Amino acid sequence: MANQNETITLIGAGLVGSLLAVMLAKRGFKVEVYERRPDMRATDISAGRSINLALANRGIYPLQQAGLMEQVKPILTAMKGRMVHDMQGNQNFQSYGQRPEEVIYSVSRGDLNIICLNAAEATGRVNIYFNQNCQKVDLDNNQLTIKDELSSEFKTIAFNRVIGTDGSNSAVREAIHAIESSQHDIISLGHSYKELRIPPGPNGEFLIDKHSLHIWPKGGYMIIALPNEDGSFTVTLFMANEGEISFESVKTPEQVEQFFNQHFPSIVPLLPDLQKDFFENPTGKLATVKCSPWHFKDKALLLGDAAHAVVPFHGQGMNCGFEDALDLIETIDEYGDDWAEIFTRVDEHRKINGDAIADMAIENYITMRDSVTDEKFLLRNALAFELENRFPKHFCPRYSMVMFHRLPYAEAKSRGVIQEDILKELTADVQSVEQVDFEQAESLIYAKLTEVNLNP
Amino acid sequence: MANQNETITLIGAGLVGSLLAVMLAKRGFKVEVYERRPDMRATDISAGRSINLALANRGIYPLQQAGLMEQVKPILTAMKGRMVHDMQGNQNFQSYGQRPEEVIYSVSRGDLNIICLNAAEATGRVNIYFNQNCQKVDLDNNQLTIKDELSSEFKTIAFNRVIGTDGSNSAVREAIHAIESSQHDIISLGHSYKELRIPPGPNGEFLIDKHSLHIWPKGGYMIIALPNEDGSFTVTLFMANEGEISFESVKTPEQVEQFFNQHFPSIVPLLPDLQKDFFENPTGKLATVKCSPWHFKDKALLLGDAAHAVVPFHGQGMNCGFEDALDLIETIDEYGDDWAEIFTRVDEHRKINGDAIADMAIENYITMRDSVTDEKFLLRNALAFELENRFPKHFCPRYSMVMFHRLPYAEAKSRGVIQEDILKELTADVQSVEQVDFEQAESLIYAKLTEVNLNP
Repeated sequence: MANQNETITLIGAGLVGSLLAVMLAKRGFKVEVYERRPDMRATDISAGRSINLALANRGIYPLQQAGLMEQVKPILTAMKGRMVHDMQGNQNFQSYGQRPEEVIYSVSRGDLNIICLNAAEATGRVNIYFNQNCQKVDLDNNQLTIKDELSSEFKTIAFNRVIGTDGSNSAVREAIHAIESSQHDIISLGHSYKELRIPPGPNGEFLIDKHSLHIWPKGGYMIIALPNEDGSFTVTLFMANEGEISFESVKTPEQVEQFFNQHFPSIVPLLPDLQKDFFENPTGKLATVKCSPWHFKDKALLLGDAAHAVVPFHGQGMNCGFEDALDLIETIDEYGDDWAEIFTRVDEHRKINGDAIADMAIENYITMRDSVTDEKFLLRNALAFELENRFPKHFCPRYSMVMFHRLPYAEAKSRGVIQEDILKELTADVQSVEQVDFEQAESLIYAKLTEVNLNP
Repeated sequence: MANQNETITLIGAGLVGSLLAVMLAKRGFKVEVYERRPDMRATDISAGRSINLALANRGIYPLQQAGLMEQVKPILTAMKGRMVHDMQGNQNFQSYGQRPEEVIYSVSRGDLNIICLNAAEATGRVNIYFNQNCQKVDLDNNQLTIKDELSSEFKTIAFNRVIGTDGSNSAVREAIHAIESSQHDIISLGHSYKELRIPPGPNGEFLIDKHSLHIWPKGGYMIIALPNEDGSFTVTLFMANEGEISFESVKTPEQVEQFFNQHFPSIVPLLPDLQKDFFENPTGKLATVKCSPWHFKDKALLLGDAAHAVVPFHGQGMNCGFEDALDLIETIDEYGDDWAEIFTRVDEHRKINGDAIADMAIENYITMRDSVTDEKFLLRNALAFELENRFPKHFCPRYSMVMFHRLPYAEAKSRGVIQEDILKELTADVQSVEQVDFEQAESLIYAKLTEVNLNP
């Protein structure tokens, strides 16, 4: 075990930072957390940015390990599949999985964060300091420069080991990359997003199916909606920054009205505050960030968005960050107080998986906005379920690997490529699952796929 | 020809911006240039950062096309090869080329910039505005937000077409990448540099050979020195940011003295101002920046460091930027006023070459600090010259392709890889050029290399 008199300093008390604080404290560490924003338990700070998130199995497992799932369960809304809406208002339900437990959950970012913050403080070993903006990390002298956002005063604070859970503008990352040979890649998608809201019905009821992730797919752009506990849905429009159909071409109230009536007529009646939401909420850019290294010697480590920013189309940003945090804990359990080794190992374990989910998330944008209305896609999806039933030790649909299981993302990605080839080959000349040659399927699967360990 | 009533706006009047302004003006365009810094003709603004640069053939050619070489020649100091210094003060000269004209030139960045600024203004079609910091480029509405650095006031200026020659923190790049699907990669080398100075001798004489690029190679780190017209040399120490031998471990005057005495004893007598220079000059970080796209529709284009930052070990940053500028001019000559096509073509032509020289520059760090003392490297270099003599239509040493010729960097890089394989194969079991099997050489070269067009 690690030296439990040790103090670990975290920068950032968001989802990953606050969950990690709980887990470190339960291992006996003292934890000091500096958070730039005000305490969200005292202030309402949500403003049109990712109000709810999708929680999947690999995000649930770390919450279970931290002993938090009993508190989290009441705030979860299960989503069993995609509800695909067409122009006429027709709805087509596509199940995510085949078993009752194969669902993902919509959860309020703020409510989940508050559970983690409360649990961290309840350990008695975590101090969280709010309005404390870490602006510089001096890795030579083990010192943080912190600006108090209320008094605008600066102070210097010593640390032993610092973990950057400080998001996409991470000061810890900047410090590591200023010293080490490093790479930092920003891949902008050229698309942005805007959050809107479907309010509850007059009696607090859900106006569209509560247990679905709703999609209005349009090829190059789309709207999605995730349920909230209160009967409302958080709606997100995704489209290009410029071009014929783009944020550039929707700038006036008249253009907004015309745009939604023309392209999304079936959602318009559900959006009474469309104009207000559209102009008051920010337009968020979509970008992937990959970097390396994620650590510096035995002194600093990056986790969550500080290490990897992914686009939201697989709903895995938080889930990946929670896995990062658990991997650190498990690696501490294995390597004791050899922090250089611990940080090196976590970097090795997680960097390849962060890259893999980043790539899969971009692919899933195409799936959501486009493929979900494609007959071949639906056929291959149906066949994937059938192959999972017939060859459960070898075949698991890629979406299921990512969302319902915990095998490493990199493995899900590489198996997914092989599986996609198999699905394409088997469906090349058929119109339904019944017409598939399952002897051919068997020989392809056994030849190309090893047995899979879905929950290592 | 392009519409010559057109006004082109440049951001940045550094080397690339000011040369481009000359060339555009000579094509008949009106050119407006906004430069963040004061006018260097009125203010001394050099401060320990790349006081002199290496000018090579591919940088000379655009200067010739702009009609500036007669003015530039007097400020050039030819460097015929590397002078490699060892610990005992012995010097070993390694010629860069085989012919008298195969030299590179040391040139003062400031003096060269001033020639270009004067020439630009002398055309009567260029306005250069100094102390004008372009902070935002609005590509939707064709407007620049400029901060006057003297008055701190902001103003908005309209543009038709904007070219970003505004260096590594380019505002034009930021604007393009905020809209377009884009990629921006920063590769930090983990090494930094510090400029020092060898003053002239008592009678203004050069204290070491005037016509060499001097290197004190040490394996993982090195010092180089380039001659200045006044008899002095600009000296640069390159080494790692951290580790046993690194900037991290050389922080006090005593450490500086001990470090140079231990690792660079033969240069110490030449550096009377070592302590002052070391502590007054900044420590510069070394990084490569690659990005795409370099253009936005018919509105904006990036050239020079704004599009590509390379490490300085091939001395090609400025040369590449000058080639960028000439490529734009030649593409305008070809496509007239179809600016969308012009910018697309320049992006296509130059991006692959910017990437190639970035990669070759990193490789050349290893060559300079390490390989120049390696027997096999020297043998392969000698053989490369011999193969150039025997097979001049097919074989040109890679250093020569980059420094003495103008074939595209990407081609120099790919031919260089093939040639290196040939050199390795031919020298695997021999100790001297005389022992090489030239029949084998002939068959390898004809099998693997096409004829080369060195100056297309």
